[in-house]
Amino acid sequence: MPPLPFGFEVESADGKARAGRLRLRGIEIETPVFMPVGTLATVKGLTAQQLRETGARMLLCNAYHLSQRPGDAVVAKLGGLHAFMGWDGAILTDSGGYQVFSLATLRQVSDGGVSFRSHFDGSEIFLTPEAAIRIQEGLGSDVAMVLDECAPYPCPRGDAEAALRRTHMWAERCLAARSREGQALFCIAQGAFEPDLRRRSGEYLSGLPFDGFAVGGLSVGEPAPLRNRMLESVVPFLPENRPRYLMGLGKPADILAAVRRGIDMFDCVLPTRNGRNGWAFTRQGVLRMRNAAHRESDAPMERDCGCYACRTASRAYIRHLLSAEEMLGGVLLSLHNTAFYQRLMRAMRETILNGCLGDFERDWPCAKAGAEG
Amino acid sequence: MPPLPFGFEVESADGKARAGRLRLRGIEIETPVFMPVGTLATVKGLTAQQLRETGARMLLCNAYHLSQRPGDAVVAKLGGLHAFMGWDGAILTDSGGYQVFSLATLRQVSDGGVSFRSHFDGSEIFLTPEAAIRIQEGLGSDVAMVLDECAPYPCPRGDAEAALRRTHMWAERCLAARSREGQALFCIAQGAFEPDLRRRSGEYLSGLPFDGFAVGGLSVGEPAPLRNRMLESVVPFLPENRPRYLMGLGKPADILAAVRRGIDMFDCVLPTRNGRNGWAFTRQGVLRMRNAAHRESDAPMERDCGCYACRTASRAYIRHLLSAEEMLGGVLLSLHNTAFYQRLMRAMRETILNGCLGDFERDWPCAKAGAEG
Repeated sequence: MPPLPFGFEVESADGKARAGRLRLRGIEIETPVFMPVGTLATVKGLTAQQLRETGARMLLCNAYHLSQRPGDAVVAKLGGLHAFMGWDGAILTDSGGYQVFSLATLRQVSDGGVSFRSHFDGSEIFLTPEAAIRIQEGLGSDVAMVLDECAPYPCPRGDAEAALRRTHMWAERCLAARSREGQALFCIAQGAFEPDLRRRSGEYLSGLPFDGFAVGGLSVGEPAPLRNRMLESVVPFLPENRPRYLMGLGKPADILAAVRRGIDMFDCVLPTRNGRNGWAFTRQGVLRMRNAAHRESDAPMERDCGCYACRTASRAYIRHLLSAEEMLGGVLLSLHNTAFYQRLMRAMRETILNGCLGDFERDWPCAKAGAEG
Repeated sequence: MPPLPFGFEVESADGKARAGRLRLRGIEIETPVFMPVGTLATVKGLTAQQLRETGARMLLCNAYHLSQRPGDAVVAKLGGLHAFMGWDGAILTDSGGYQVFSLATLRQVSDGGVSFRSHFDGSEIFLTPEAAIRIQEGLGSDVAMVLDECAPYPCPRGDAEAALRRTHMWAERCLAARSREGQALFCIAQGAFEPDLRRRSGEYLSGLPFDGFAVGGLSVGEPAPLRNRMLESVVPFLPENRPRYLMGLGKPADILAAVRRGIDMFDCVLPTRNGRNGWAFTRQGVLRMRNAAHRESDAPMERDCGCYACRTASRAYIRHLLSAEEMLGGVLLSLHNTAFYQRLMRAMRETILNGCLGDFERDWPCAKAGAEG
């Protein structure tokens, strides 16, 4: 049976916001969608079954991290990423460009690729666009990402232009290098914080046959209004009938702002990282579950949440687990927060379908601009 | 509705080994039984649902630890330990005697009770038999344990005699102090490593109306043959029609040896602690899951195990999670090991019912005397 074609359609729009459907390997993903992050083929602390029960149907894994351990060849030999991690939903792999440009030491970029020291064992690595594709094809994800050069914030204009030129060149090389049928390939628009570069990137990449269009280089420390301006500079130049993915975002308010500017896909470590740190996302805003206020509370973290943690654990129990540094505290919070993000995205989608995204914050105060968490 | 009476019956014996049934709050527990340890109202890393799926129906929690945090009054206010931790199986609480005598600093024992510094906040605590009962009644466990004085190994005879005298006196005070209907109370035989003291303890306690009889002060560093000799010194003097519980044991081989000497109940941290350290129990023996040998293995940890980890994860995936220090590695191993111990106990029970416990090690090499793990 030939692999099912990649598909995307916009079902409904509310202003620039879109409700759509993504099809990958026969799996239908409703958008806007939030992908929990499973860098190393595990969303921290959660089993694949728990993850499925949160409503998540698509994850992000990191190709660079996985190439370091256990190695993409090992994953390929074991039947690919889905089999390796026991996940029957969809998987998008990030190429690792962001990690290389944000974490790596002794980095040297040339048009050929980027050389750096492995964060894992210190060995020297030369990552090229072709290698990024080869790794992701070996991993067998449903969506591969191009290798890009991610500029920092702030970034001198000259550097931003150079990174953009390379990002575009590498995107074309990734297109040329791809060989795996049934695996979608997304490009990444860059341009740092220069509106005209953002526009140029959108226009340039739109001319290339990518399955989806990501916006990279945001959520790197810039203020939200600046990020939103960058989105407004690039999104109008991306194809209407392709999914748009804002990488690495974020808080509910930031996601809502991006959805309103036409973004369909998101990923972020916040639900699990903040969960391990004792924060619970709720519709009303963040709860700090270590607080003494929860000491004797028999209420669930959130009354209208149907997740396993809210069905079975009181705030007092969660607080106790966190105070005692018990693993289960982080597990239950990660579970709740991951389920919360799925619920948040479903609510945005329904609100778009009903044409009233403008009122979203009324029912979801957590998504008010400037809201914490 | 009045609380259902505590019940125990021996269904079948094979030599001194017994297959029985324990009834607590209407829950039937087949014996021999292994209770996973959830010291602080959580079996480390596992949700109540995961725990249930391992086949476990009875847990051990620690009354002293819980009295320190979150506090027995908090647990009582929240409806007791079962509601607090979302566990619908049975719960036995240890009084904390073992912890006081093995961990506490600045300990002072008198006939009245034991004073020591809290391991948690350094505050001074005076624990009496009456307080141990009051705490456990507040927690609402199904089985409470008396406060005892646990002698170390090795132990001078004079100290062993003094500890035994106090243990017996305290046992009677616990009996007098109990007031909660429907909560069973078990005593603890002591006597260190003196066969005649062990016998004396068994004879003395058998004359008192306890629901069950534990053997304490073993599994404290002594060689297995010495432990077995102590069991042979005390068990024949315990009532036939009451459950017998060997506290804090242990490895499969040690459990088998104790079952053969007439013990019905066990608890130990090994399945979860060794799980977090990367060891998998299997019928054939221990697997060290960090070993490079598992790097590319698509086999489950154990072929005939139906646990979630063995159904969904390869050895290669488990090894990867452990190498990357990912929480899920410890979770999956704890899950497997906990399920393994339940399977091991079910197998012993069936073998007793079939009258062939003598051959047990043939099918379960992990339980051979001296087997690792």
